Order: sequence, then structure tokens, then C-alpha cells
Amino acid sequence: MVRDPGFDEAERDAVYTAIGARRDVRRGFTGEPLPNDVLERLLGAAHRAPSVGLMQPSRFILVRSLEVRQKVRTAFEEANRAALERYEGEDRERYGALKLEGILEAPQNLCVVCDAESERGRGLGRQTMPETAVYSTVCAIQNLWLAARAEGVGVGWVSIISPDALRSILGIPSHIVPVAYLCLGYVDRFGDEPELERLGWERRCSLESVLFHDTYGGGA
Amino acid sequence: MVRDPGFDEAERDAVYTAIGARRDVRRGFTGEPLPNDVLERLLGAAHRAPSVGLMQPSRFILVRSLEVRQKVRTAFEEANRAALERYEGEDRERYGALKLEGILEAPQNLCVVCDAESERGRGLGRQTMPETAVYSTVCAIQNLWLAARAEGVGVGWVSIISPDALRSILGIPSHIVPVAYLCLGYVDRFGDEPELERLGWERRCSLESVLFHDTYGGGA
Repeated sequence: MVRDPGFDEAERDAVYTAIGARRDVRRGFTGEPLPNDVLERLLGAAHRAPSVGLMQPSRFILVRSLEVRQKVRTAFEEANRAALERYEGEDRERYGALKLEGILEAPQNLCVVCDAESERGRGLGRQTMPETAVYSTVCAIQNLWLAARAEGVGVGWVSIISPDALRSILGIPSHIVPVAYLCLGYVDRFGDEPELERLGWERRCSLESVLFHDTYGGGA
Repeated sequence: MVRDPGFDEAERDAVYTAIGARRDVRRGFTGEPLPNDVLERLLGAAHRAPSVGLMQPSRFILVRSLEVRQKVRTAFEEANRAALERYEGEDRERYGALKLEGILEAPQNLCVVCDAESERGRGLGRQTMPETAVYSTVCAIQNLWLAARAEGVGVGWVSIISPDALRSILGIPSHIVPVAYLCLGYVDRFGDEPELERLGWERRCSLESVLFHDTYGGGA
């Protein structure tokens, strides 16, 4: 049987390359603003993500204002100081030396939020697992992340920040869920390996160690 | 300035094509089992997803057993009957006519779960937003979904199922979070548009309607 997935081998490989070469980028932003057409393609990729019941609950706040980014940076610093307190000894030194965000270096930030109570999609697929609304928004983020890699644009996800601080700074209503705060911009290079691995914080595990068959913990 | 993202135009376009042509597939599975090398590439794509603090909390339960899939199908039917009760009139007729899963037609199912309490990554990035552990697992799912599209493999996400039923059928421990139950297999075709749009359940909205600038609700 001949199958025509619509992708030739080179195109298929390009998708795997984007997946494998994608990095969480916190340094090396060139400061050059992204052209509007590139931004539109990236946001379009996010917007075309799967969503439960075709709900499309994702909302995108593109942050270019330096003043707003400075406020977000301050909120990061507060959260990061509190995070540092949780570590001791060598871990604390290592943690303190990590660079964990590029809020001011990346000319574009993007806060991705979810309107989890939207009536769109009329509840389809959300009765047993309502969390799939927020999951739809995470799918949008991963779409954008991969498209960005193919565009040569670095993306860093800043999770060391209080969602309430984001609400306050960006005027996000209480019924809207802040899902991710991203830093976007051209970078001088992409690392060959995750930065946390390169710096000795954690090592990647094997696929075999997280793959089961037919039941949780089940072997092949 | 010349930028070398490592992707030529055709490769970049291939990534966008995968994003745009990806569908939630519930029908048309050919029944032909996926070769092991294809399955390994798809699972490898999922495993290479970003994860908070390099935590890699995703665990994959590949379900090929017909007996197990039949139990899952029964659990879907129960959840779907309850879901149908929530609709009235024309919506109820429409909902009842939808095909919302391919559990038995797709020779491979995949339950993707999250070990949200894993010590891996030593908590980095999870103190203010612990939900990023589960979000990491959703990123893995979207990686797999796009890789599958490039392989000509259909993926359908079944969210109309009780997480507790999945725990019971698949032996998932209480501290592990069931995130998604997916149906995977070759399909005779991919739809040009989302099936829920084609069938009149919901229509896609425009990017412009969900894009803000600098603050929630803010214009350009």
C-alpha cells in the first residue's frame, strides 16, 4: 500500500528537526525587533492549534512596551528571590548563577492566556475533563515554539513569576487564566543541548525509561 | 544582517504545513498497525518536548491490547452518554450524531500521563506555577501530533472519558495525572477543515479577535 501523507522525506525531516533543535532560550537575544510578517506567522501558528470542541480559548497579549516589560521583570525578580530561598548549599549557588529569563533583552514578550469559561465549542469534550481548555492553550504555545525555531526565533518560557502579578500588570480579568509568559526574539545561536543540561542542573532521561505498554509500568 | 536559522524556505514551510494540516481525527483509520520505527519516531518527538526545569514528567502508555481498548471504549461510552444529557433539542441531535473517538479502529492508543511530583529538575520553575509540570506533558502531546501529521498518521484526542476510569483500566497510580488519551493510526485522508466546523458545530474565529497589545483587551 502506498501512502501519501503529503510530506516528502525532506519535509518530514524538517518537522523532526524543528522538534529536536527547539530550545528554551534565555540568552543571546540580538535585540532586533521581529518584523510584523514573522510575528503574524508565529501567532497564526499558535492560533491554528487544536482546541477542545473547537473552543479556541487562547488569547495572546503581545508585549512590546519597555515599561510593561520592566514591570514584568521586577515581578520575575521577586519570584526568583523567593525561589532561591528554597535551595541550599551547592544547589543554591548553582541556581543563583542560572539565567532564567530574557524579558528585557527580547524585544517582544508574549503572554498567552486562556478564556477557560468561553461558551465557544458549547462544552464539547469538556464535561469530564474541563482542564482540556487550558491544555488547548498549551498546544498553541508549542505550535508557536516550533514555528519560531523554523524562523530562527528564540523562545523562552518564564514560569518563575506570580500569575497574580501578571494579572495586575497586564490587566488580565479574574476569569482568564495566565498560562505562559514568553520571551521572543532573534538569537545569535541555538544551543546543541538544553542549557540546564549543559550547566549540570539536570540530565535528560531516556525514552525507554518513560515508556510503558498496555498498563502503567507495563513492559513490552 | 544575514540570519541562518538552519531552515531553508521549504523546510520552514514544511513546519507550517504540519501545523496547518494537523487535524483531530476520529474516523477513517485504515486499521493497519504502525511500524515500530514510526512509533519510535513519534514517541521520540513527544519525549523531546520542552519541560519545566528539564523535569521530563511525561510518561507514555502505548495501548495495543484490544481487550484494554475495549474497556476504554466502554468508559468513553459512559462519559459520552452523560455528556449527551447536557444538550437539548437540535444541539442534542447534532451531538448524538458526532463521531468523537476511534479507540477500536485505531490499532494504537496512547495514554499520556504526567508524574507531576517527580523530583527531576529539582523544582526549578515550578514554585510559582506548579501547573507547568502538566503543561510540559501537553507540549509533548503537541509535538507528537505534528510529527504524526508529517508521517501521515492521524491522531485523535479523546477527552470524553473519566480520568478515574483511565486510572482503573490502565493501573495508573494516584499521584500520576492522566493528561490525554490518544488514538493513533494511518488514515485514508485528512480533512481540509476541522470536522466540528464541517459539521456545523462551531466555526473558527479570527486571529485578530484574540490578539491584544501590551494589556489584555489592548489594541495595536
